[in-house]
Order: sequence, then C-alpha cells, then structure tokens
Amino acid sequence: MSYLLYIALGLSLLAIIYAFFLYRRVMKCPAGEDSVRQIAGFIKQGANAFIKKEYLIIIIYTVVAFFVIWISPLGLYSAIAFVLGAVFSASAGLIGMKSATDSNMRTTTAAQQKGMQKALSVAFKGGAVMGMSVVGFGLLGVIIVFIISNQFMGFEAYHAVEIAAGYSLGASSIALFARVGGGIYTKAADVGADLVGKIEAEIPEDDPRNPAVIADNVGDNVGDVAGMGSDLLESYVSSIIGASTIGALAFAANGVIFVIIVAGFGILSSILGTLFVRGKEGSNPHRALKMGTYVSALLFVIIGFVLNYYFVKQGVFTVGEHLNYLYGPAISIIIGILVGILIAFISEYYTAAEYKHVKDIAKQSETGHATNIIAGISTGMQSTAIPVIILAVGTVLAFHFGGLYGIGLAAVGMLGTAGMTVSVDAYGPIADNAGGIAQMAKLDKRVREITDELDSVGNTTAAIAKGFAIGSAALTALALFNAFMQAADITGIDITKPNVIAGLMIGGMLAYLFSSLTIKSVGRAANKMIDEVRRQFRDIPGILEGTGLPDYAQCVNISTGAALKEMIFPALLAIVTPLIVGFVFGAEALGGMLAGTLISGIMLAIFMANSGGAWDNAKKYIESGKHGGRGSLAHKAGITGDTVGDPLKDTAGPAIDILIKLMTTISLVCATLFGAGIF
Amino acid sequence: MSYLLYIALGLSLLAIIYAFFLYRRVMKCPAGEDSVRQIAGFIKQGANAFIKKEYLIIIIYTVVAFFVIWISPLGLYSAIAFVLGAVFSASAGLIGMKSATDSNMRTTTAAQQKGMQKALSVAFKGGAVMGMSVVGFGLLGVIIVFIISNQFMGFEAYHAVEIAAGYSLGASSIALFARVGGGIYTKAADVGADLVGKIEAEIPEDDPRNPAVIADNVGDNVGDVAGMGSDLLESYVSSIIGASTIGALAFAANGVIFVIIVAGFGILSSILGTLFVRGKEGSNPHRALKMGTYVSALLFVIIGFVLNYYFVKQGVFTVGEHLNYLYGPAISIIIGILVGILIAFISEYYTAAEYKHVKDIAKQSETGHATNIIAGISTGMQSTAIPVIILAVGTVLAFHFGGLYGIGLAAVGMLGTAGMTVSVDAYGPIADNAGGIAQMAKLDKRVREITDELDSVGNTTAAIAKGFAIGSAALTALALFNAFMQAADITGIDITKPNVIAGLMIGGMLAYLFSSLTIKSVGRAANKMIDEVRRQFRDIPGILEGTGLPDYAQCVNISTGAALKEMIFPALLAIVTPLIVGFVFGAEALGGMLAGTLISGIMLAIFMANSGGAWDNAKKYIESGKHGGRGSLAHKAGITGDTVGDPLKDTAGPAIDILIKLMTTISLVCATLFGAGIF
Repeated sequence: MSYLLYIALGLSLLAIIYAFFLYRRVMKCPAGEDSVRQIAGFIKQGANAFIKKEYLIIIIYTVVAFFVIWISPLGLYSAIAFVLGAVFSASAGLIGMKSATDSNMRTTTAAQQKGMQKALSVAFKGGAVMGMSVVGFGLLGVIIVFIISNQFMGFEAYHAVEIAAGYSLGASSIALFARVGGGIYTKAADVGADLVGKIEAEIPEDDPRNPAVIADNVGDNVGDVAGMGSDLLESYVSSIIGASTIGALAFAANGVIFVIIVAGFGILSSILGTLFVRGKEGSNPHRALKMGTYVSALLFVIIGFVLNYYFVKQGVFTVGEHLNYLYGPAISIIIGILVGILIAFISEYYTAAEYKHVKDIAKQSETGHATNIIAGISTGMQSTAIPVIILAVGTVLAFHFGGLYGIGLAAVGMLGTAGMTVSVDAYGPIADNAGGIAQMAKLDKRVREITDELDSVGNTTAAIAKGFAIGSAALTALALFNAFMQAADITGIDITKPNVIAGLMIGGMLAYLFSSLTIKSVGRAANKMIDEVRRQFRDIPGILEGTGLPDYAQCVNISTGAALKEMIFPALLAIVTPLIVGFVFGAEALGGMLAGTLISGIMLAIFMANSGGAWDNAKKYIESGKHGGRGSLAHKAGITGDTVGDPLKDTAGPAIDILIKLMTTISLVCATLFGAGIF
Repeated sequence: MSYLLYIALGLSLLAIIYAFFLYRRVMKCPAGEDSVRQIAGFIKQGANAFIKKEYLIIIIYTVVAFFVIWISPLGLYSAIAFVLGAVFSASAGLIGMKSATDSNMRTTTAAQQKGMQKALSVAFKGGAVMGMSVVGFGLLGVIIVFIISNQFMGFEAYHAVEIAAGYSLGASSIALFARVGGGIYTKAADVGADLVGKIEAEIPEDDPRNPAVIADNVGDNVGDVAGMGSDLLESYVSSIIGASTIGALAFAANGVIFVIIVAGFGILSSILGTLFVRGKEGSNPHRALKMGTYVSALLFVIIGFVLNYYFVKQGVFTVGEHLNYLYGPAISIIIGILVGILIAFISEYYTAAEYKHVKDIAKQSETGHATNIIAGISTGMQSTAIPVIILAVGTVLAFHFGGLYGIGLAAVGMLGTAGMTVSVDAYGPIADNAGGIAQMAKLDKRVREITDELDSVGNTTAAIAKGFAIGSAALTALALFNAFMQAADITGIDITKPNVIAGLMIGGMLAYLFSSLTIKSVGRAANKMIDEVRRQFRDIPGILEGTGLPDYAQCVNISTGAALKEMIFPALLAIVTPLIVGFVFGAEALGGMLAGTLISGIMLAIFMANSGGAWDNAKKYIESGKHGGRGSLAHKAGITGDTVGDPLKDTAGPAIDILIKLMTTISLVCATLFGAGIF
C-alpha cells in the first residue's frame, strides 16, 4: 500500500503550493500609504534582524548536534534526518514571519480602503500561508525520511520511524529555541512598552512616541508567528511520529502509512476549510473563522472513516492483540478531535469576558492589585480540572477502542486539521500588527476599530490553539512515552520503585524550574527595556510632545540581545537532562522523570495559559467601561494582572508543551543507548 | 520486646505532664495591666467562639464517620481508633490555643516589665505547651491502639497497625478541617485588615482603630496555632503509621515497636532540647531557638544508633530481604534529619532577606506591582529545584540503606524531634500576638520593639517548620503508598497503563483544584471583611479619630462564619475522591492518582510556601528603609506581593501537605475494599 505514501507526498506538496499561491494573492493587495509602508518597514527590519541572529545560533546548534548524533550509535541517517527537521522547522517559521510582515500593512490598508470583509480576508490569507507551510513542510519531511529509509534503503518500518524520530527531534529543538527566544523577545518588549509607556507616561498603546513600540510589534512576529509556527510544526510532527512508532510495532509499514495518509487528507480538509472563511460586511468575523474550522473537522472525520474502511478491506486492521475494534483507529481520531474541541471550549469559558470567571477577576480588581492577582491565580488553577478530566477520559477511551495506537491516533486527530487551526492562530498577530500600524501611521480612527475587532477574535482563537497544543502534547507524549519504553526494552515503569519515584519528583520539578528560568529571563529583559525607554523619555528632547523621534532601533536591539542570550540555558537544560538521567540512573528512572514532567507540566501549562488569558481579557473588560473603566483603580489592577500573565501565557506556558515532547523525543531517540544506569 | 512499648507510653505521658507543668509556669507570670488583659480577653473570646463552632462541625463529622466506618468492612475497632484520633487531634489543637491565648499577654507584660530574655522565655514556654501536647497525644494514641489490639486482643502486628491507621485517619481529617478552616479565617482577617486599614485608611498594623484587628489576632491563634497543631500531630502520627505498617510486614511486632520507641525517645530529646532555649539579654533570640533544635537533633541521632544496636543485639534486625545493612534503620533516621535540615535551609535561602532572591523581589518592586509579582512567582518556582533533588536523593539513599522501612524511618527521623520544632513554630504567633496587644494597649514603644524582634525570628522558624512539613509529607506519603500497595495486593503500579496515567493526571490536577478552592474561599471571605471594615469606617462616627469604638465582634463573626462555611467542600473533596476512584477505577488507578497528587502537590506546596515567604520578607525588607521604604511605590508593590502570598503560603500550601497524606491514608485504610474497579 506504499502508493498511499505518494498520495500523501502529493498532498503535502499541495499545501506548500497553496501557501505560495496565497502569498502571491496577499502581495497583490495594495501596501498602502507611505507612512504605513514606512512603519511596516521598521517592523519587518526588526523582525528580520532578530531572526537572522537567532537562526545563526540555531545553525551552530544544528551543526554541532549533527556531528554529535553522527558519531553516536544513532549514526549518520538520524543525523541527516535531524538536520532536515531543523531546516524545515526554521523554514516554516521564516515563511510564516515573512508572510505576516507583508500581510500586516496590507490588512491595515484593506481596512482603510475596503473595510472589514477585505481586511479579514487579507489577514486570514496571510495567516494561512503559515498554516499551510507548517503542515506542508511538517508532513513532507516525515514522508521523505520514511520513503527513503523504508522504500529505497529497505529498512524495516520500525527502524525507518526511528530515523524519522531524528527528524522530529530536529524540529522539536528548533521549536524550543524559537518559542523561548521569541517568547522572551515579545514579552520583554510588551512589558517594557506597557509599564513605562502606558502606566508612567500615560500614552496609549501603539503610540509612536513610545520607543519600545516597534520592538513590541516585532515581538508579535518573532514570537506569536515564527515561534508559534515552529511550535505547531513540532506538535504536528511529534504526533505523527508518536502514532507511527506504535503503528510500526503493531502493523509494520502499514501502521505508519495509515498515520501518514490520514495526516495527508487532514491537509486537504484544512485547505478546503480555508475556502469557507469569508467575512461578510457587518457579520461577526469570529463566525467565519469558526465555520472554516468546523468544515475542516467534519471533512476530516469522514475521511478518517473512509480510510479506516479501506484499511479494514485490505486486511491491515484486524481485531486482535493490537486492536479491540475494527473501527478503533477512526474512533480514536474522533476522540482526539472531540478532546481538542472540548478543551478549547473550556479554555474559552475560563478566559473569555462573556463568562463569570473573567467578570469575577474584573470585579476583584476593584479592591486592587492583590485581589486581582489572587483571583487570576485561583481561576487558572481551577481551570485545570475539567481539561484534565477530559484528557484522562479521552486517553482511557482511545486506548479502549484503539489500544496504544489509538492514543497516538487521538493526538493525530487533534492536530490533523492543524493547517486550519494554525491559519486561524497566525491571523491574530497579523490583525494585531495591522492595528498597531494604523495607530502609528495616524490613520483614521475607523481603521483601528476594524482591526481591533479582528484582533479581539484573534485573542480567543489563540486561547483555543493553546488548548489544542496542550491537549495534543499530553497525548503525543503518552504515545512517545510508550514508544520509548518499547525502544528501551523495559516492560513497565513501576512507580513503587524508589528510583522511579525519584525520577517522577525530579521530572515534576523540571517543569517548574524551566518555567522559572523563562519567566526570570523575561523579567531581566523587560527591566533593560524599561530602563532604556525611561532613558529615552528623559534624554531625547520633545519625544513626548511628538517633535523628537524615539530611537526604535535601540529597543529592538535590547530585545534581540536579551532574548538570544536568555534562550540558551533553558533550551540546553531540556536537552541535556534526559541524557544525564538516562545514562546515570537508567531507562526506568528516566521513564519516571518523563512522566513527572508530563503530569506536573500539563497542570502548570494549563494554569499559566488560562490565568494569563483571563487576566488579559479581564483588563479588556474593564477597559470596555466596566468597574470604572480606563484610568480607574480597577483598570490599574487589571493592567498589573495582564502584565503578570504575559510571560506565563506567552513564554513559559507554550514552552512547557515543547519541553515535554522534546525530552520524550530525545529519550526515545536515545532509548537504545541507556542501560540500567550507573546506579 | 513489648516492654519497650510501655517505656514509650511513659515517655508520651511525660510529654503531656511536662506540657502541663510548662502551662502552670506560664500562668504564674503576671497577666499585666487592665488594658492588656482587656484586649487579650477579646482575642481569647473570639478564638474560643470560633473553635467552639468549628469543633461542633468536627464532632458531627466524626460521629457520622464513626458509624460509616463501623458498618463498613473496616468494623468497630477502626471506628473507635478513628474517634480517638479525632479527639486527640482536636485536644492538642485546643490545648495549644488555650496556652497561646494565655501566653500572648504574659509575653507582652514580660517584655514590658522584664525585657527580652523573660519575654522569650514566656513565649517559648507557651509554644512548648503545644509542642509537647502534639507529640505526647500523637504518640500516646498510637501506643494505646497498638497495645490494646496487639497485646491485649491478640491481633497480629500488621492488623493492629491497620487499626492504628484508623487513628491516623481520624487525626488527618481533623487536621484538614482545622488547617483549612483556620487558614481561611486567619487570611481573610489579615487581608481584610491590611487592604482597608493599612492601604486605604493608612493606619499602621495592629492599630486598635481597625475593626478587623481583633479578628486578625484571633486568626493567628486559630490558624497558626490550633490549625498548625492539628496539622503537625497529623504529620507526626502519619509518619509513625507509615513506618510501622512497613515495619510490621518486615519484622512483625518488633518492626512496629522500633518505630514507637524511636518516637518515644525523640520526645525525650525534645524535652531536653527545650531546656537549652535560654534567651540572654542582648543576644539574638534566634540563636537560643536554634541551640535547642540542634541539641534535640543530636540527642536523637545518638539514641537512634543505641536503639538500632539494641535491636541488632536482640536479633530483630538482620541483613536479609528487608535490610541491606544492619545499621540501615539508624542511617535512614539520620538521612531524614539531614533532608529536613537541608530543605529548611533552602527554604530560608529563598525566603530570608539576607539572601539575593528576596532582595531581588524588593528591587523588582521599584518598577511596580506586576514586576514584584512576576519576581515572586519565578522565585517560588525556582525554589522547588533543590529541595526536590534533596528529597529524591534522600529517598533513594534511605531505600538503599533501609529498604522501604528506611523510607518510612526517614520520615520518622525528620519528625522525631517534632516536640521541639512545633514548640519553636508555635512560639511565633504568640510573639506576634504579644506585639499586637502591646500596640493596641498603647504600651511603650520599647515593648513593641522587643516583641517585633521575637516575631521576626518566628517568621524564619515558620518557614523552616513548613520545610519539615513538606519534606515529611513526601516521605510519609511514599511509605503509606507502599503500605497501600501491599494492602491492596497489587504488585506494582505501571505508569504505562492508560488507567494509571489517567489516575496520575487526575491526581495531579486535584492538588491544583484543591488549592484554587481554598484560595477562592479566602478571597470571598476577605471581600466580606473588606466590605465590613469599609462600612464601619463610614458608619461609626469618630472611629478613625479614636473617639468611636469599632465593632470588633462583627469582624470576628464574619471570619468565623466564612471559614466554617468554606472549609467543608475542600475537605470533603479530599475525603471522597480516593473512595470514588478506588471503587470505580480500581486500586491501581487509585495508586496512580495518589502518586499524581504527591508529585504535583509537593511542587505546588513548595512553590506556594516559598513565594509567599519571599514576598512577605521582601515587603519587610522594603519597610526597613530599602528602595524608598514605607510609603514608596516599592512598598505598595511589596504589600501587594505579601497579600497575594498570604493565602498561598498559609492556607493552600499547608493544606496540600495534609491532602496528600489524608488521601493516601484513606486509600490505605480502605485498600482491601477496592477490587479491580467497575471499569
């Protein structure tokens, strides 16, 4: 059935071609007035400068890792796959960012010249370039590695997937650098711009008099676009590799082919879904985006069953040791989709201003900063409950219907329409940037109103994408975890053994340590930014009156330098720890550690994502005129909450998802090298 | 060797007699001026009113639980043991509180009439009444249950310990009620008094014009004394039961007797240690308290070896299946002591103003509330790293030397000198109260200075006691966890099974849900308090000028009502969840859940305790004149951090320690009732 691989290959190439086509469409839209183009140029320049420096570090890391993997028992093929993963991940991020920095001003101009419908269309197309690149490159790499090693070089399926895990490892490590680096960049600039600009100098958001304003907008592109793109590519690829490893053990090559062809048709569903995103003048843009998402999901469900039917007919799937039900695989895929949607809905419930928790945080802001923070923390903690129960039930059900393969497929199901979810997610920062440009270029107020409406939808969709990222991280990690066990040749990980308990505790702690490192990095970088902005307000004459020009480049440089310096240690911690624990304490203790990081990391990630989201929207709710509105004590407290939430939800939280999978993938790739440990 | 049980019985009675003797000594000290006695009377009244209502609820719960346990397969003996545990736990808390509310004014008067040395002596004696009651009653109950069931009724050792686990369960559930109820009470009053009194009305701490000031001081007694006493009794008893269960399986009755006699001589070490606490005029009170602690620990180590030697001579301990080293038990005890001291030291490092983290938080307060909060959160997260590594290493080492028994004994070692640590811990709120009384009675400023110095030492010792509580919770839970496995007759808990993974996730989440419930309760109660204090400032004429008298009783009523109402649901959650999971999903999934709560709970407890401690001391550091001192922006941000930290460190954090053990104890007690589950 290897011809299916070539169909999937074609579908992944189709995504890349479609991305290119969308990009051309975006570029045909008018770039706009001189002032718009000038400001967009600043942003583009800053983003390119950062990416250039960041990618230089990534290249050095990749080259070193290439040689290390080559001379290790993993060998040359894994090393080459690793490099391919790194290159594809970096490419998807780069293309996404290029598209975003070209689409932002065109969205502004579309809003100015044609109104909401056209602006939504441009911003969404710009985001879809990234969405399609992520899934196109992600799947393409897996297929290339698998076809070459399995079909051409004749490795058996399991070994071929092991090599493909090297590809996944490449993608994961780049994702961690990009997420942490981009996350530190964007939040340092954001916090710096807010604390000095908004609170001290009392000038509005995105005001061109604020020296950090360009850095802030650059941050959206390098963090929320490039970083997020690498992140989602990583999630997507890991889920495919996780399911494929188990598939290879259960059904040999056909178990892998099923996963790949499902992912391929998932891409097709996403492409068709994008066609349904059409903003109507006067209608809610949220509806258009949701419509596209639901259409993709529905198509994907149908295709899943059709493919399952075909694999049953061909005699691949039979009831037996690996499968309790003939349609277990398709049912597992549906379970994954449902779990994703439910978690996303719960995220929305805890973070959207329509529901009681955000309203409660806003009310608690009336009594000041402390009660705002306490309310946000407890809301975030509480918000872990239902998603975790859903995940637990989903895991048990997927296992019931599809065995271990089912758990892997649930993750693939959740991310199968990633092409669509990433498009929607990348649309947010483009709309945000478009608003910033409108403000800085002093366009008509009406333009900003349109982009604000587009942006507010983006906030909700970002929370939904985070729900998918966390949910799929858990399921993928479970699949990879089982793959690791099989590879390490351990039959069980018994938590009643002291070394496993020690591993669990240390793993659980790593999620906290990692979070604290990234949050502290943001704090340090933000401090530098605060000092610089204060210095410019003090030293540059006429800056607040609008007669003196701020030195934007200096702020961009500070964010760039700080982010690059700070991203290295947390990333290395994630990469080196599993190796040390594996070699010193053995595979079973390492298994405990991975489980510990998974358990404690999921809770922490959900907590931080939802606390942050809720604080953000509570502030916006107050700004809409509630509890005294702008300038009131409640508003000041709301800004405090939002600022606290920023590094939690946009730096530490998303990075933990990658941390969990990166550590598991490293363990899987190196599983055969670990013995019982030195101790 | 059962005569050793009677020696231990004698030692536990000695502790109770010594407590009574100390109480008589305290009562002989002069109570002081009329104004002092009047204010202390208000506090005492409020505390008694709360305890009366709280204990009524506890009695109802105990009676219901008695009948449920009786008709369950556990039977009458466990039910009686349960009631004994509940009664002893409540008694220790009550005696401690009575002593504290009698000692506080005598400490004030001693400071006024005789100076630092005498004040330290009175406050410490007052605290030692509680310390000795906790260990005296705690051990006495275990011995009574064990002697009756093993020696008189002839049950074999393991079964006798099972019945004693019912005693532990009684103590644990009362502890949870007392900790949660007391914690909500004290923090609601504290936050309410601070936010309206200090920030809005700008009157100093403990000012008699603040209507919530009595409630705040009552809170110290019902939360930090009575709640803490029940909590520590629970920790102490659980550690003994955990080690005894494993001891019974390995060495029959003698394995239990060793644990009990070790605990008995631990009491003697503590009593001797208290004699070394002597404040010298002009010397640091911290030194005197540390001296006592070190003397107890040293004596305890020596006694541990002597007893180990005796058990080797008697042929009880032999190298074999259960023991790798003849002196494994004594070595494990030392490991426990060292782990406790190291964790306490790390807590101090992260929370004391002498070290860089608190200084850093203070510095970050200069840029406002948000950066203060971010710095505190990341410091707390980072502070999990070293304690967890110490715990992991300690667990592996204790297992290496003493097997599973060693892990249990390490917990006993850590809490062996609890008589001393609780005395030191209970001294803190007494000194705090003494200062409050001095302030409210408008005594000479010099008096307040003395009590402030005594109090500041209390803050550090409280952090140390929390370190011991968390560390021993982890080790005890591990011992109980293994006991549970043996009782449930499962040979291992394999985290690669989906139902175990589901259990792990749900367990991990419970720690977050439980924290959020308790934090939200504090928030709600504090809000009521804020409204009431504002109302009084508005409605009572002359209140701020000192001519109108505030309605203290109304604030006391609010705290009382809110705490009692709010404590019930979290407590029931902790009690009911293990039963549901055990019956529905089976023992192995329940094991996963317990491990999940342990892993995620330890991290969360350390994070919350140390963030809270660091914020508290950062505020005090700023108040000492740094970064602008009182009234500066940094100070306002510091108060915000302190207020946020309050419910984390004094309500949610300590309650998690109990949650972990209570859930494990319930599972152990009911282990034989769970099968493979319905699913």
